[in-house]
Amino acid sequence: MKIYFAGAIRGGRNDVKIYKDIIIYLENIGKVLTEHVGDEKLDIMGEKDGIDTAIYKRDMIWLQSADAVVAEVTTPSLGVGYELGIAEKLRKPILCMYRPSEKTCISAMVKGNNQFFYREYHSIKEAQSCIDAFFLSLIYPKNTNHSYK
Amino acid sequence: MKIYFAGAIRGGRNDVKIYKDIIIYLENIGKVLTEHVGDEKLDIMGEKDGIDTAIYKRDMIWLQSADAVVAEVTTPSLGVGYELGIAEKLRKPILCMYRPSEKTCISAMVKGNNQFFYREYHSIKEAQSCIDAFFLSLIYPKNTNHSYK
Repeated sequence: MKIYFAGAIRGGRNDVKIYKDIIIYLENIGKVLTEHVGDEKLDIMGEKDGIDTAIYKRDMIWLQSADAVVAEVTTPSLGVGYELGIAEKLRKPILCMYRPSEKTCISAMVKGNNQFFYREYHSIKEAQSCIDAFFLSLIYPKNTNHSYK
Repeated sequence: MKIYFAGAIRGGRNDVKIYKDIIIYLENIGKVLTEHVGDEKLDIMGEKDGIDTAIYKRDMIWLQSADAVVAEVTTPSLGVGYELGIAEKLRKPILCMYRPSEKTCISAMVKGNNQFFYREYHSIKEAQSCIDAFFLSLIYPKNTNHSYK
């Protein structure tokens, strides 16, 4: 099982510790291709060694090869949104996890989109339950059209 | 000419006046389907009257019907990123415009992606020049694969 984890890098690193916890949990399930997203040393400027075209091409190869996509969507991110759009068109199973707060509001492109397995959470324990539910839905799908609602 | 303009709503409304200026300029070229993105009365909570599923479905119909997509990508936005991913897979011509600053860094998924006509600008006059260059490239394409670099 290859998992593409998507979280904000240049959009903002406020949630990097949560990304790290999620990645550690996902590694019990499969190989996380994008482990660097949870690296606390990686700042908003992103990967120092990579030029943008090379990063883009590498990420698209990983995304194409992934069996599932898990996105933490609380911090608004252009890159995460883009990856979700491409992943949807590649017909990948997609989990979007969001921590609600009074100051933020999740995009209708995510919450209103029934191609995504969308869940809200408030703690790492709840995040783990969302992940469990998502991967169980892949093993025991109720239907075949990737619609989870 | 139908134009889908993409700008942040729930990601943050800091740039709404710029969106409005861009939309006014685009209206000289064609019909802007998403005129509400430049509405200063529309806050971060988004459209009050729409439920997320209805907003999502309407926007996807607009995106499919668009002849071109123009995105202002300075404020990180999950929705704008998603629209870019879907628009790319629909093979729409896409202009991404970004205002560089010391505090921000544009996603490699946009800057490293040669499917997009990517331009940086610092003033509305420069933004208008980017728009002119993009639409001229559609009239006089140098090649047929939507690669502009």
